[in-house]
Amino acid sequence: MSAPLPDLRLPQPLVDTALATALAEDLGLAGDITTEATIPRTARASGRVGARQNGVVAGLQLVETAFKALDPGVSIDVLVPDGGHVGAGAAIARVAGNARALLTAERVAMNFLGHMSGIATLTHRYVALVRGTRARIIDTRKTTPGLRALEKLAVRAGGGVNHRFGLYDAILVKDNHIVAAGGIGPAMKRARARAGHMVKIEIEVTTLAELEEALAHAPDAVLLDNMPPGMLAEAVEKVAGRAVTEASGGVTLQTVRQIAETGVDLISVGALTHSAPNLDVGFDFKAGD
Amino acid sequence: MSAPLPDLRLPQPLVDTALATALAEDLGLAGDITTEATIPRTARASGRVGARQNGVVAGLQLVETAFKALDPGVSIDVLVPDGGHVGAGAAIARVAGNARALLTAERVAMNFLGHMSGIATLTHRYVALVRGTRARIIDTRKTTPGLRALEKLAVRAGGGVNHRFGLYDAILVKDNHIVAAGGIGPAMKRARARAGHMVKIEIEVTTLAELEEALAHAPDAVLLDNMPPGMLAEAVEKVAGRAVTEASGGVTLQTVRQIAETGVDLISVGALTHSAPNLDVGFDFKAGD
Amino acid sequence: MSAPLPDLRLPQPLVDTALATALAEDLGLAGDITTEATIPRTARASGRVGARQNGVVAGLQLVETAFKALDPGVSIDVLVPDGGHVGAGAAIARVAGNARALLTAERVAMNFLGHMSGIATLTHRYVALVRGTRARIIDTRKTTPGLRALEKLAVRAGGGVNHRFGLYDAILVKDNHIVAAGGIGPAMKRARARAGHMVKIEIEVTTLAELEEALAHAPDAVLLDNMPPGMLAEAVEKVAGRAVTEASGGVTLQTVRQIAETGVDLISVGALTHSAPNLDVGFDFKAGD
Amino acid sequence: MSAPLPDLRLPQPLVDTALATALAEDLGLAGDITTEATIPRTARASGRVGARQNGVVAGLQLVETAFKALDPGVSIDVLVPDGGHVGAGAAIARVAGNARALLTAERVAMNFLGHMSGIATLTHRYVALVRGTRARIIDTRKTTPGLRALEKLAVRAGGGVNHRFGLYDAILVKDNHIVAAGGIGPAMKRARARAGHMVKIEIEVTTLAELEEALAHAPDAVLLDNMPPGMLAEAVEKVAGRAVTEASGGVTLQTVRQIAETGVDLISVGALTHSAPNLDVGFDFKAGD
Amino acid sequence: MSAPLPDLRLPQPLVDTALATALAEDLGLAGDITTEATIPRTARASGRVGARQNGVVAGLQLVETAFKALDPGVSIDVLVPDGGHVGAGAAIARVAGNARALLTAERVAMNFLGHMSGIATLTHRYVALVRGTRARIIDTRKTTPGLRALEKLAVRAGGGVNHRFGLYDAILVKDNHIVAAGGIGPAMKRARARAGHMVKIEIEVTTLAELEEALAHAPDAVLLDNMPPGMLAEAVEKVAGRAVTEASGGVTLQTVRQIAETGVDLISVGALTHSAPNLDVGFDFKAGD
Amino acid sequence: MSAPLPDLRLPQPLVDTALATALAEDLGLAGDITTEATIPRTARASGRVGARQNGVVAGLQLVETAFKALDPGVSIDVLVPDGGHVGAGAAIARVAGNARALLTAERVAMNFLGHMSGIATLTHRYVALVRGTRARIIDTRKTTPGLRALEKLAVRAGGGVNHRFGLYDAILVKDNHIVAAGGIGPAMKRARARAGHMVKIEIEVTTLAELEEALAHAPDAVLLDNMPPGMLAEAVEKVAGRAVTEASGGVTLQTVRQIAETGVDLISVGALTHSAPNLDVGFDFKAGD
Repeated sequence: MSAPLPDLRLPQPLVDTALATALAEDLGLAGDITTEATIPRTARASGRVGARQNGVVAGLQLVETAFKALDPGVSIDVLVPDGGHVGAGAAIARVAGNARALLTAERVAMNFLGHMSGIATLTHRYVALVRGTRARIIDTRKTTPGLRALEKLAVRAGGGVNHRFGLYDAILVKDNHIVAAGGIGPAMKRARARAGHMVKIEIEVTTLAELEEALAHAPDAVLLDNMPPGMLAEAVEKVAGRAVTEASGGVTLQTVRQIAETGVDLISVGALTHSAPNLDVGFDFKAGD
Repeated sequence: MSAPLPDLRLPQPLVDTALATALAEDLGLAGDITTEATIPRTARASGRVGARQNGVVAGLQLVETAFKALDPGVSIDVLVPDGGHVGAGAAIARVAGNARALLTAERVAMNFLGHMSGIATLTHRYVALVRGTRARIIDTRKTTPGLRALEKLAVRAGGGVNHRFGLYDAILVKDNHIVAAGGIGPAMKRARARAGHMVKIEIEVTTLAELEEALAHAPDAVLLDNMPPGMLAEAVEKVAGRAVTEASGGVTLQTVRQIAETGVDLISVGALTHSAPNLDVGFDFKAGD
Repeated sequence: MSAPLPDLRLPQPLVDTALATALAEDLGLAGDITTEATIPRTARASGRVGARQNGVVAGLQLVETAFKALDPGVSIDVLVPDGGHVGAGAAIARVAGNARALLTAERVAMNFLGHMSGIATLTHRYVALVRGTRARIIDTRKTTPGLRALEKLAVRAGGGVNHRFGLYDAILVKDNHIVAAGGIGPAMKRARARAGHMVKIEIEVTTLAELEEALAHAPDAVLLDNMPPGMLAEAVEKVAGRAVTEASGGVTLQTVRQIAETGVDLISVGALTHSAPNLDVGFDFKAGD
Repeated sequence: MSAPLPDLRLPQPLVDTALATALAEDLGLAGDITTEATIPRTARASGRVGARQNGVVAGLQLVETAFKALDPGVSIDVLVPDGGHVGAGAAIARVAGNARALLTAERVAMNFLGHMSGIATLTHRYVALVRGTRARIIDTRKTTPGLRALEKLAVRAGGGVNHRFGLYDAILVKDNHIVAAGGIGPAMKRARARAGHMVKIEIEVTTLAELEEALAHAPDAVLLDNMPPGMLAEAVEKVAGRAVTEASGGVTLQTVRQIAETGVDLISVGALTHSAPNLDVGFDFKAGD
Repeated sequence: MSAPLPDLRLPQPLVDTALATALAEDLGLAGDITTEATIPRTARASGRVGARQNGVVAGLQLVETAFKALDPGVSIDVLVPDGGHVGAGAAIARVAGNARALLTAERVAMNFLGHMSGIATLTHRYVALVRGTRARIIDTRKTTPGLRALEKLAVRAGGGVNHRFGLYDAILVKDNHIVAAGGIGPAMKRARARAGHMVKIEIEVTTLAELEEALAHAPDAVLLDNMPPGMLAEAVEKVAGRAVTEASGGVTLQTVRQIAETGVDLISVGALTHSAPNLDVGFDFKAGD
Repeated sequence: MSAPLPDLRLPQPLVDTALATALAEDLGLAGDITTEATIPRTARASGRVGARQNGVVAGLQLVETAFKALDPGVSIDVLVPDGGHVGAGAAIARVAGNARALLTAERVAMNFLGHMSGIATLTHRYVALVRGTRARIIDTRKTTPGLRALEKLAVRAGGGVNHRFGLYDAILVKDNHIVAAGGIGPAMKRARARAGHMVKIEIEVTTLAELEEALAHAPDAVLLDNMPPGMLAEAVEKVAGRAVTEASGGVTLQTVRQIAETGVDLISVGALTHSAPNLDVGFDFKAGD
């Protein structure tokens, strides 16, 4: 990746809250009783955060915050930042500080890093497969509850782009809304009446006829749901740049290239956030300064 | 599964908190603007929660709480409870209530159900593979931050059993603790001195020599880390029932049977909670009563 | 207002949180010691929520939640819903329930209702003044800290529309961003690169030259800041429908009509939310059933 | 104001909570996407907080906390502290730090400062009008929900004094309490029986006859509600120093002087906190050190 | 106690928060694993809340809320309300509902009831000892952190009265304040300048000379700290009704009567809230309806 | 105590939360109005935390956090750490910092220290009485709601050991569970089926016959409830080391030695946490540097 890395930071209060929840979950009322029993309170140590497989890194802000929560004076040296590629066996960061703090925070830090890097890595695989087409890989609202902001950052770290963040920041008119509103026309009219001037409107269609009907209402984007590649290409042609085109449904590492070659602008992949395996990361601890 | 299903409930306040976080994340300040624009406020609807692939269900308490959060009067009819098997295409539950509430809660409910059922399903695959041996499949602390209680319930739904819940409820002396304490003996002595009578002690060993040394201190369990099957079998023989034996490291769907046949009591699998793909579940909405 | 009233509801968890904060603030640790001393615990009462001046109502969801927080069995009969006009002396709602609950919740309920109705009423005055032009009245981020969602609902109740909700749901490139990015061109390019396909981009300009430069980058909207009416009209003409036009700066009840007649699409008014006086509302209490 | 300024600080945890709420509201999950796109992460900048109209300053503790929340290393130089007068065009404070932090925190900081300074400024106008009489200007519980502590501080910054903070810290027997208790006598007796020795008792009266009856029970203060000036003067004479006298109802900038000249001790003005327009404050940003 | 019981309720949100904290503490992430293992999910049961020693009851609102948190449909029949006397072996309340809910909530409910009734019972012992004198027994700020509102209610249940609730609702000028302010005079002047008209002022004195000096500034109350009975009597005489007199320091069940006979109005006892042993209460569980 | 003191720290986030609650309770919305009125904002002071009676110290982490919450730059010098003995009149710690901060935090700090040291001191009295026997003193779940982690630390400071922390971290099968499950056998079988390999199981018995039945199921521990000393000794003999033995019921300072001499491993004492009087601690304030 020779291009500059994207600028990947979350609002720090969000990160602090996520960490507080995770640490409370792991420490309970009694704390890390094993470490307390076996490690002297003032012992110093260092640690190396490393990858055990190739991948794209995401979540270092969480890692840093985790160690600092247990030892505010910890030092952290990041070797591969969010969005960077790491090879199997390579180091991602080095940490030095209080020995107990490192051991107690280790699992929480690695859980965040492994989860987010897993998403970044899977995203990157999809992104690499569509290189050379106009298609960009985009996420969905199928995120792990409580971690949406973190997972959407990880998607960006992997080279993907974000769809809307929630039900509140854009309008996406789906099949059920259309049926309930009495058709594409009434649904689009109601949506437009409700939307402020900074709110975009996308509408889901499953046939070319529906697409045609939808385009008459000038949506910002159309969600072409579960269309086979041939129909997708036809749809893209029909849209002719009048709206952003998004393909969804049945997207896998096997099918994504073919879909991209239909000319769609965006391909949304729920699996990025709901089914990415963790990147295998580890923490090598070394007692002493 | 002819045996009675396990009894799978979380403390309701935990569930309420998880839901509140997930809903806040999806609703923001403005709420579900699409649904508000297109669905009349008092419209009624029903929905069918179904599986699109075979699997084991987990998370219905979350699904129920999600819909009730938006419409306290919603009715829910569970067809396949937590821990039950569902076939591709079959229904898991039916829901009826306010149309807006169903549409607004749908994604959050499905996110919880897909995530937890994914874990239950993967766990069940491991459990099925070791059937007939004495080995049980057990989880780890490699959980998704914020969701540990939910994920550990999902593991039980899949037929697995839970390891300790956190750093606070049991002692697990790992390599770094041993080094820092100056050896297995001092580490075990300090652990024993710290542990109350209701706290169990497990110790990690990587060689048969370490195992022998550890057994001299009567741990409740030994974690046999990254041992090849031959060594595992020898370790089990050496332990001879004096401690619970847990194998960890390198456990996959391909290797788990061979590991189980070494006679170990437990096989821990981090992937259960950190890398299970979602079970593909969906919500079919139908307007009207 | 013969048109149907807009559909004005906030996500209930937001309302519950706002109420909990307000009640905690008023009740402290000791509660309503006056009412506890003077009113029998089981006494019943009714109350009439009324307006003491003409205005537009907003906030009844808060009023209802306030009384229910103190007496879950309270009955509330709304006579003028959110968005409706009320005359001086007329009733807005009637409440009946436990006497203590009514007296203890009264001030909190009236504080929300008076504040939100004040905003709705002021918004409506602006809206009425621009009737017949294409201009719509729009709010800003100059809201009372902690009450943004409530205040933006009140703006809608008064017939206004909402600008973006925060820094997160749309891009608004202002003068400082432009300077820091090195000009309109670079700023727009960076903004476009960052924005997902559901994120709109607006850019602030103060001269016609800047406007021209901005239009070359196809923004969704242009913020015409502090332009005199003549220049505004020229700007609207120059835009020629290629972007939504928003006028801001120096908008008062005296100037808004003239601004609207320039043909702009939107006129943003910070005062709607930061300087609207409360609508004078009151609660007439009557002991007994 | 040659007298030393009052000592105006809120408990810092209250301020931190108010800020966290306000920032969460403005940053959402995605943060300040405009600033992130256009301003380099490590750029430095300075800013000048200034007034665009004459007024009294309040809220600098909030301003300081807002900028520090985004950049803990920010430097802030206060030129006009809380309670001080600022002229149109003059600077209130200077800030220097990370450029993104300044731009992201700006609106939240200005929203607090404008709101609180608006209250201080309106309070000061009332205070100035009663100079030379014994009357002091006092606030009410008609505050903006969630901001009571901040608004009461702003009233003190403007030279006013605070009434009770809530339902919990003093007894105020109003008309409804009197009716429900069966008259002034029984209400006062019950109030006295409930009040600890550190709790003051005030009672509302609307006629001289009620006043006389109330005085027989030695209240600490009497609330003379909606009495015309002539009756107020008579009431003050009748009280003759036996209780603090508070006038309320119909108090405006036009009427306050006449009311003050009746000799009352206190004049309570709900508008101070429920209807003060913001003081127009702004933030001039300058990139670079 | 033939007089009607005092009216003892806390703001319900306070109670809900206290319960949520206590239940979270006891349930953790896994919940009541013993009850879940041994009691069928739908089993019904009843229980009797009883006293094992004589005492005064306080905390039933907490007991009720605890059981309802686990089973919203539980029925509770209170036999001895807050403030009532219960004999050893007698029942305080009867509960019926889901068997698991009763067993899981039992300890939390009994912990609140035992703690609060312990305070009420100790308070009542002091109150009984001063019967016939003018002295009332009053609490202090020496409360258990987090439970102040509950403990102050328990004091009232035992027949005591409450001192100020915190640092915020009254002024109590102590020795350190006097020294720092440069003497009683300056301290009282500053206090008076700061206090609103609803805030009382008490001042601590340790000698008759200090008392005399303090009385010149007309405090609402004087705290006569650590004075021997003879000096106390003299102090009361000197005050001659010009201020409320409060004795503090060295108050025990042995000394309280003698102190009361000096004629002081109030005797403050820190031990009421910091050292009261629990009242021994228990829960007798009976399976079945 | 010549042995090294135990290592007594709580997870800092738990401490921060406990402090935030306690400070909010004491400061309310207005803060420490007395100190604000009488002490200059920048005055410096020092303080000595001392004991007024002999005892064992616990809670210094809370003391430190309390003062730092009000003045982050405060310096604290601990003379007697948690678990150390302090004589009447001796100093425990010295504090220096902002004068207002010291006075405002004083009561909260002393409330925590007095409460926790009271528990440590009472625990130590029990521990001293059983010296020379094998018995250790152990706490229960009869803790003050909200303070369990703090109180269990205090028990360890006094030389006691901790029983389970809650319903979640160990199984304790009590009489009601046995009855509901249909006997000791079924109850133990269900418990064992539910327990993970890191969860210990204890069972309550009241007769030797029940004990015999329970031992057949190899519990980790047996709770010998309310057995007279003779029966206890017989029970210990019968157990013969096959399980940990815990005596409970009727344990007082008078009876504990006799119980210990029966040979039981553990003696649980609810009074440690529910009825320990505060240790009398105080704060001597001195203005100036």
